[in-house]
Amino acid sequence: MTVFDAIDQPTLLLNSAAAKRNIRRMAQKAREQGVRFRPHFKTHQSAQIGEWFRAEGVEAITVSSVEMAEYFADAGWTDILIAFSANWHQTARMNRLAQRVRLGLLVESLETAQTLAGQLSAAADAWIKVDVGAARTGVPWQDAAQVGQIAAQLRNAGGALRLRGLLTHAGHTYAASGMDAVRVYHEGVTHLAAVRDALAAQGLGGLALSVGDTPGCTLSPDLGAVDEIRPGNFVFFDAKQMSAGVCPPQEVAAALACPVVAVHPLRGQVVVYGGAIHLSKDSFPLNGRAVYGLPALPQGDGWGEPLAGGFVASLSQEHGVVTLAAEDLARVRVGDWLCILPAHSCLTVHAMRRYLTLDGEWISTCN
Amino acid sequence: MTVFDAIDQPTLLLNSAAAKRNIRRMAQKAREQGVRFRPHFKTHQSAQIGEWFRAEGVEAITVSSVEMAEYFADAGWTDILIAFSANWHQTARMNRLAQRVRLGLLVESLETAQTLAGQLSAAADAWIKVDVGAARTGVPWQDAAQVGQIAAQLRNAGGALRLRGLLTHAGHTYAASGMDAVRVYHEGVTHLAAVRDALAAQGLGGLALSVGDTPGCTLSPDLGAVDEIRPGNFVFFDAKQMSAGVCPPQEVAAALACPVVAVHPLRGQVVVYGGAIHLSKDSFPLNGRAVYGLPALPQGDGWGEPLAGGFVASLSQEHGVVTLAAEDLARVRVGDWLCILPAHSCLTVHAMRRYLTLDGEWISTCN
Repeated sequence: MTVFDAIDQPTLLLNSAAAKRNIRRMAQKAREQGVRFRPHFKTHQSAQIGEWFRAEGVEAITVSSVEMAEYFADAGWTDILIAFSANWHQTARMNRLAQRVRLGLLVESLETAQTLAGQLSAAADAWIKVDVGAARTGVPWQDAAQVGQIAAQLRNAGGALRLRGLLTHAGHTYAASGMDAVRVYHEGVTHLAAVRDALAAQGLGGLALSVGDTPGCTLSPDLGAVDEIRPGNFVFFDAKQMSAGVCPPQEVAAALACPVVAVHPLRGQVVVYGGAIHLSKDSFPLNGRAVYGLPALPQGDGWGEPLAGGFVASLSQEHGVVTLAAEDLARVRVGDWLCILPAHSCLTVHAMRRYLTLDGEWISTCN
Repeated sequence: MTVFDAIDQPTLLLNSAAAKRNIRRMAQKAREQGVRFRPHFKTHQSAQIGEWFRAEGVEAITVSSVEMAEYFADAGWTDILIAFSANWHQTARMNRLAQRVRLGLLVESLETAQTLAGQLSAAADAWIKVDVGAARTGVPWQDAAQVGQIAAQLRNAGGALRLRGLLTHAGHTYAASGMDAVRVYHEGVTHLAAVRDALAAQGLGGLALSVGDTPGCTLSPDLGAVDEIRPGNFVFFDAKQMSAGVCPPQEVAAALACPVVAVHPLRGQVVVYGGAIHLSKDSFPLNGRAVYGLPALPQGDGWGEPLAGGFVASLSQEHGVVTLAAEDLARVRVGDWLCILPAHSCLTVHAMRRYLTLDGEWISTCN
């Protein structure tokens, strides 16, 4: 009996030993460098997996939505940062959360600072979102004047919202690979520190710095002069992180077990039951093409290393089309299982909504 | 009070009047041409929306998984085709289904024909999956000999599995645009008919033909000499279908309402709360780039036409980055709602798991 005998359709397998090692390593690194470890829980989305972090001394967490904050507050977490530019329509729920936990919110405009200051009655922390190059959200770091205006607005408003610091997500490290991600990480820290120093010179001192992304926090030996880091993906990693050299194959802790439903020798492909609704349709570039995951063969109660030359070439709603090298194609049969290392584990977890550990335990998520 | 006053986070809005018109139009076309209408329910995934099809005389349906078949069997459907190459690991569930409904299964290999014939005890229909050019699953149409072997195997097995016909999904019409999709559709019908005729010449006669995809069935005035059509996406359409000229904007029946959380005038973009976990990360090519959806402004209890020059430029887990023309950017504020016509409505529905109709009714799905 292996775990594959207990399933009949696409199933997200979790190597909990590998995940726990990933957590321990990052917790230790942060501890050694005196940096608060506020992991992003949007990757695993599970109260039960949250306990694995608590066992490593984690007390403060990051989430990506109000509903995820509510779920983890129910699970006993008391210091929760919603790392998403505040959505005004949810201030009533933010107020209720702020009465239960130390709540952190993201502000990136004067309008949001004013609105939150006016509508929040329970004490909450405000972090100003600064864009250090990812060009998604945040005030551009070059515009310290704009950050200063928001900071002054928050300081002067005097209500329940307390300005706590400056925060960035250097999402562009995900496009960098290997040691380039380290350079991008430190560049981000430098930019953020420059904004803090400019504000201090205006009398807006005492601001904390919050940074963090998996490639930067994993690869950079030195986390820099920051107050907290917020990586998330590192708990499971994925095919993209592995391909970018952020982790070795054995640290990838989640894979989608998929039944093979067709073999097409002439095309050099097999088709698996496992598509966009299971893996998500995220991809990453590999050898000049978009790749939706990397296939591995089952090995005991888990999976082996990704098959050389193999990749998920396309996904439709339920189908995955997997290209395999000739020698692997020759040994895969209809009815076999393939394990697909997802392109992006956060989205795969969100799509699948539960895990099966390699020793047969189901773990649920908030979803 | 509009529907926007009742929501506080990304919400999938459904224009039920438009969806019902889309259903009526396709049902009428099939009826007029004497073709069985076996709509694919993987798009809407909802028992309640299924009733709108029943009201138009639909009796037979298509689904994409065993669990979706179980859900719709529970909802009273008695003729269900699982249009996905059979996954052997689920034969026990197929058997239970086949005892309750007329069940159709897809076979594309001798191994699957043998396995199903050996394991199914309740009567079920087998359809041989033929690839007419999409290169995803199915026996290539050029290989009538292989189709003939599978057909002979199914006829000779003599068990509960009855060979019913040949089936294809011309998924490559989705990459074609406008009238080109009509050509691809009819080419598929011609290829499938050629295989049927070759089999009839070998004594394997009486096979039905099942085809269908939204672009082909919508745009082709003549559905051709087929027995049944299985389009699904047409119930809601989406930005991709609209951009390919398959439908006008007012026939797109689903849109994701998203709060604006940031405005970036220098980049010509706004950021909405609405990301890959809401829209899915599917995209389509528009003006030489990948587009993840098209933005429209709220209008009364619904949304207006997509904004000229606007598009969803990127998605991360919860964020959508939307490029807008200067005049639209000037009138959008943080806290406003934008309605995003999804790139691919099937995947958005699957991600969101429920709808809010424009008159305020929540509709659930199987998910």
